[in-house]
Amino acid sequence: MYVIETVREMQVTADALRRAGQTIALVPTMGYLHEAHLELMRVGKKHADKLIISIFVNPRQFGPSEDFERYPRDPEGDLEKARKVGVDIVFMPPVEEMYPNGFQTTVKVSKLSHHLCGLSRPGHFDGVATVVCKLFNITKPHIAIFGQKDYQQLAIISRMVMDLDMDIQIIGVPTVRETDGLAMSSRNAYLTKEQRPSALSLKKSLDLASKMVGEGQQRASEIKKAIEGLIKSHPFTEIDYVSICDPVTLEEIETIGEKALLALAVKVGNTRLIDNCILEKK
Amino acid sequence: MYVIETVREMQVTADALRRAGQTIALVPTMGYLHEAHLELMRVGKKHADKLIISIFVNPRQFGPSEDFERYPRDPEGDLEKARKVGVDIVFMPPVEEMYPNGFQTTVKVSKLSHHLCGLSRPGHFDGVATVVCKLFNITKPHIAIFGQKDYQQLAIISRMVMDLDMDIQIIGVPTVRETDGLAMSSRNAYLTKEQRPSALSLKKSLDLASKMVGEGQQRASEIKKAIEGLIKSHPFTEIDYVSICDPVTLEEIETIGEKALLALAVKVGNTRLIDNCILEKK
Repeated sequence: MYVIETVREMQVTADALRRAGQTIALVPTMGYLHEAHLELMRVGKKHADKLIISIFVNPRQFGPSEDFERYPRDPEGDLEKARKVGVDIVFMPPVEEMYPNGFQTTVKVSKLSHHLCGLSRPGHFDGVATVVCKLFNITKPHIAIFGQKDYQQLAIISRMVMDLDMDIQIIGVPTVRETDGLAMSSRNAYLTKEQRPSALSLKKSLDLASKMVGEGQQRASEIKKAIEGLIKSHPFTEIDYVSICDPVTLEEIETIGEKALLALAVKVGNTRLIDNCILEKK
Repeated sequence: MYVIETVREMQVTADALRRAGQTIALVPTMGYLHEAHLELMRVGKKHADKLIISIFVNPRQFGPSEDFERYPRDPEGDLEKARKVGVDIVFMPPVEEMYPNGFQTTVKVSKLSHHLCGLSRPGHFDGVATVVCKLFNITKPHIAIFGQKDYQQLAIISRMVMDLDMDIQIIGVPTVRETDGLAMSSRNAYLTKEQRPSALSLKKSLDLASKMVGEGQQRASEIKKAIEGLIKSHPFTEIDYVSICDPVTLEEIETIGEKALLALAVKVGNTRLIDNCILEKK
């Protein structure tokens, strides 16, 4: 396994792989790797000859009052996990390699960024789209793998790839959960033992909504009301949003037709958690 | 010479060239080719094995009151000229191939877009950066060639390439002029015979400024005053801007040090013309 820290070396290496006829899969991460990341990597390995992962805590996708400084980091543990899962190359640049002096370019996916997390995290998705565009140009993958837990991120990146004619296949991987149902996230490390049961209110909300839709409920307002009640019955919780929306445009919908996206963002203590599922009429 | 109209076919073709070890040069154009375009193509041919040109009048870089509809077009004449100069592939997509329904992504180079033409043409450089990013992803060049007449465009594209880690070498080619000194531009076709002498006031202004600097004048305000007088002495003219600025940041400067950019935009009748030169202290 190679660890590469500069853009130039990564590009030269990717070029050499491509010239040798090898296909490349990329799994972009912010490190502090857990089982869900490893699952993305396993999918990546299945789809390409060589697997590159990037580990980069991207300052440009954190708001000024967010947790960039205290975001959990464990580079040595990450490298150990990557090696075990069979990663070929880890791209791990320092911040100044990615954002040198004078940097001033932004990739913006406009409409999709104006919903859900985009409302409470202004600029977040511009930061995500820009860094992913850079990582694509640096690692030159044929395929890139993202988790469906970050549904809006996946939608925005897919749209960016389409709109900018990036010749890359995007694969979304179903959310990986702890045994108690909590969606895996590096931020789960922030949760105290007392807060943990409250964190489960997100998954319970998804299950409740699926059950209601299964029983014939089609009115989004009724489902949201039930979810809000469920979440508020747990201590430490503060709802950011409960959205039932079109899975493609992310626009709110009132009546659930064939398919709808249910997306949640809830603060549990100081930890902001998200989760989502597709609601399907039986 | 191949003419390609779809993104997919162009990408597959570029991939095949790259796999065969061939280098690709791209000259992006809006068509209505003239001698200055042909010069860019000759430079492109010198620098790579295969020369691709694109012909696409990009609606997203025209403002609502600008000349998108009446921009001069001559696809058959263009193909004839491209063939003569030895172009290998012409990429000539219809608008709906480049901007299908739902398109919503923009590449923005912020600081450099806030000067010169960016002030009088809001959104213009977002449109330019976005379409050039797309054309790069579609034609996959090693090298791309741009004219220095569009100095700000060249600066913005160079910055975008650097910031987004596009693995492409950008080459700027000196402005090609008519025998009377007028910088070549497809928009020169709009000029009437009566307006033509007024159009020469731009080049005369560059020459005047170079002379003044050569004689020791370092104060930008003095040079601008002289240029404004010269241009206003010609009928049909309306100054958009006369700027003396830093050649890298495009920020206005008061005292000319080692190097400064002199950039002009002047309407002659309804035709907006631009020109520029570097002022160098002897």
